[in-house]
Amino acid sequence: MKQTIIGVMGPGKGATQLDLEYAYQLGQLIAEKGWILLTGGRASGVMEAANQGAKSAQGLTVGILPTADGVGTSEAVDIAILTNLGNARNAINVLSSDIIIACGMGAGTASEVALAIKENKTVILLNQTSESQAFFKQLASQKIFIAKTPLEAIQVVQESIKKV
Amino acid sequence: MKQTIIGVMGPGKGATQLDLEYAYQLGQLIAEKGWILLTGGRASGVMEAANQGAKSAQGLTVGILPTADGVGTSEAVDIAILTNLGNARNAINVLSSDIIIACGMGAGTASEVALAIKENKTVILLNQTSESQAFFKQLASQKIFIAKTPLEAIQVVQESIKKV
Amino acid sequence: MKQTIIGVMGPGKGATQLDLEYAYQLGQLIAEKGWILLTGGRASGVMEAANQGAKSAQGLTVGILPTADGVGTSEAVDIAILTNLGNARNAINVLSSDIIIACGMGAGTASEVALAIKENKTVILLNQTSESQAFFKQLASQKIFIAKTPLEAIQVVQESIKKV
Amino acid sequence: MKQTIIGVMGPGKGATQLDLEYAYQLGQLIAEKGWILLTGGRASGVMEAANQGAKSAQGLTVGILPTADGVGTSEAVDIAILTNLGNARNAINVLSSDIIIACGMGAGTASEVALAIKENKTVILLNQTSESQAFFKQLASQKIFIAKTPLEAIQVVQESIKKV
Repeated sequence: MKQTIIGVMGPGKGATQLDLEYAYQLGQLIAEKGWILLTGGRASGVMEAANQGAKSAQGLTVGILPTADGVGTSEAVDIAILTNLGNARNAINVLSSDIIIACGMGAGTASEVALAIKENKTVILLNQTSESQAFFKQLASQKIFIAKTPLEAIQVVQESIKKV
Repeated sequence: MKQTIIGVMGPGKGATQLDLEYAYQLGQLIAEKGWILLTGGRASGVMEAANQGAKSAQGLTVGILPTADGVGTSEAVDIAILTNLGNARNAINVLSSDIIIACGMGAGTASEVALAIKENKTVILLNQTSESQAFFKQLASQKIFIAKTPLEAIQVVQESIKKV
Repeated sequence: MKQTIIGVMGPGKGATQLDLEYAYQLGQLIAEKGWILLTGGRASGVMEAANQGAKSAQGLTVGILPTADGVGTSEAVDIAILTNLGNARNAINVLSSDIIIACGMGAGTASEVALAIKENKTVILLNQTSESQAFFKQLASQKIFIAKTPLEAIQVVQESIKKV
Repeated sequence: MKQTIIGVMGPGKGATQLDLEYAYQLGQLIAEKGWILLTGGRASGVMEAANQGAKSAQGLTVGILPTADGVGTSEAVDIAILTNLGNARNAINVLSSDIIIACGMGAGTASEVALAIKENKTVILLNQTSESQAFFKQLASQKIFIAKTPLEAIQVVQESIKKV
């Protein structure tokens, strides 16, 4: 039976220390709820931290990789989906996640938040600049939630899932 | 020999009257320069207006369609590339364009600007809110240009192409 | 840590009774080995039968769906990857599988076997016509194995995995 | 207005001398009819020869490239669509062509013929082994035509287009 998948999106090498801490906590909390974690799968930044967090709590992790050969995949990814689509795989990250949490921001993450809005998905913004919050709120005021902590983000996920 | 392709991205049904006027003028100016116009190809909003503008000046128009069957393609598209990729085709719009002009804003357009930044492409923003300008400038200050008119956008294109 | 993924490809509504029986057995055997089953994910033909077989043996199942909304996904799929790529998702089926078993034949399956050869993957043909065997052997004699039964197919998988 | 696009598919470095001669002639004949030539766009084998043939007759050529940067694109491609999808771009080759001519055979070409059958497109086989003819005829007897020469292939195209 289809299991609940929560997508955590965020920068790779551009991630801040706080992005990484929050991503690790998100991974842990998602695993503790029994949900599956989905990320872009690379051994870098928010992807790596979220996957490590999920595995620390015995979660199951899915990585949607941009490459054909899986080089650079996080060791903490259980199920590696090798797309060879480059950044076009960001559309799959969004479609395959029941809800998206953006933890930090970069160009790839921005494309994922935008595609999620386009697909009418709920998006939770965590650790964002005021510019990022203002822009995405302007694009889609009703589907964008702003969370102050990973725990708050997970509470929003829980409420959103109930409604589905 | 590979010809120069200029991508004009913008909202479909959410386009404003000024978006449409600017898109038509962009299409005209691109055609007059002898460049090829690339859009998302649908008979809607900025895509339709830009293609109509280009055809009014005998330009050649390429549409990268999200569907398999081409239903809803603009009549002003000469070369219809049917991807059946949905919004994942936005990545192709960006990669296939030498430079991207975002005329107006919506979720799809935001994903294209973000992907263009990720791919290190030059992006020209036209008819944007201050929130949009602030966000994308924060993401990539060096590759984002803000134009006040279609003519100014085309001048930026011309200077950027010289450098390539 | 990345787990072993075995892809079972085959026709949807065009599947024969023997295709379905073999697919169910393949799913069971893959699950019993502790491998993950990957299919095209739809509630039809070989995909449905393989997923049902895997779940009968408490396996984990991944479906790579062609749609955006997951309508028509097999109830026996645990992890639904929604690509919205149509048949272009066949390339992902192939890349994400360590080895591909083609159980029966149809146009979609033929594209997957061909793409697998192109990507230099090992392919096992099960329940094929002599025309199908002759054609694919001609394309890639070294990477194509012909199995007479599901059990024989699984033995080939096991030997191939050892070599990786 | 949407123009007619004819896809010529065939092997890259595995092309035979006759594949190349036929591909060049196909390109010429397609251009002379005023149709647009679509290929996989690389400077290799059937793709290169078909594009050179089309340009020798002042045709317009579209290449659907597997890469992001266009390295290795045929000099005879006018409009380069950069997909960065790897072999998943084969699905776009097929969907964007009104009719597909397979000139010679290889794994990539086989995937294109199979996808074309899946999408219910007319496919013309040129310079094929008896194994290839037998297999694809078995998959889809009604939509597969076997041509003995490039000229015969073009006659089939012309008749098929009339019916659309």
